[in-house]
Amino acid sequence: MTINENADDDVKTDIINSMNLLVPQKGDYRHVEGNSDAHIKASLVGSSVLLAIEDGRLVLGTWQGVLFCEFDGPRKRKVFVKCLNSKTMQQSDSGDVAKKIWA
Amino acid sequence: MTINENADDDVKTDIINSMNLLVPQKGDYRHVEGNSDAHIKASLVGSSVLLAIEDGRLVLGTWQGVLFCEFDGPRKRKVFVKCLNSKTMQQSDSGDVAKKIWA
Amino acid sequence: MTINENADDDVKTDIINSMNLLVPQKGDYRHVEGNSDAHIKASLVGSSVLLAIEDGRLVLGTWQGVLFCEFDGPRKRKVFVKCLNSKTMQQSDSGDVAKKIWA
Repeated sequence: MTINENADDDVKTDIINSMNLLVPQKGDYRHVEGNSDAHIKASLVGSSVLLAIEDGRLVLGTWQGVLFCEFDGPRKRKVFVKCLNSKTMQQSDSGDVAKKIWA
Repeated sequence: MTINENADDDVKTDIINSMNLLVPQKGDYRHVEGNSDAHIKASLVGSSVLLAIEDGRLVLGTWQGVLFCEFDGPRKRKVFVKCLNSKTMQQSDSGDVAKKIWA
Repeated sequence: MTINENADDDVKTDIINSMNLLVPQKGDYRHVEGNSDAHIKASLVGSSVLLAIEDGRLVLGTWQGVLFCEFDGPRKRKVFVKCLNSKTMQQSDSGDVAKKIWA
């Protein structure tokens, strides 16, 4: 799963195409099920996302969405969602955040 | 660290081989310690995993395990484990999860 | 964002150069804004890091820092920081952690 632009579907297409260039479906793989590329892609993109919630809404950039990447489909998948207690939320410019974290 | 199949060891071999194709050990790197590839691989795979626990057990797919990827070994590493309080756990089909999150 | 060595700036240069080799800025992309490579790199590296805090300090390796990777800049970014309640902290050698988690 990954957080990325969810406004222009071409971004998703570009991500998929680029992943297929980086890790071709057919290659010199040992895993006999024929889906080694999907396993490798899953480890590159990651199996979970961490999302902030404020006032009952996901905190995402203007164009961002949460993308569930299926590299070995179509097949049925299950997604697990956990809500964690958080104490504080701080929003900073990227240039300032180091100072604030360490203050 | 990454979550991936832990049943067939060939998956791990394929991941390692593919990472070595993407980021060769020898390359036009500037870092003088000779382990630039390991640094890059670490950022591609990620330094931590987020794991759900229910009823005292890790919630993983049937074949999944947590893989500690050593790209610059063998050497001794330390792993840090934190347990976080969670409120709720929801399990959804990937097709339904968006609706539930936003409901 | 990623956790990696923050002592030798060459590591950052190597990461950037390697990302540019893997996902060239100019390519056969469909997204018309010209920053498809940045979107893809963002999904490879990931949009957040999970950091442990003990005694008011980030728990990082000796040389590690938190790197904010800008693949489509310079531009202004916002970083969101949340603090989560944690119960316990366990530090283990990588070879022992499986036993402890499952015990």
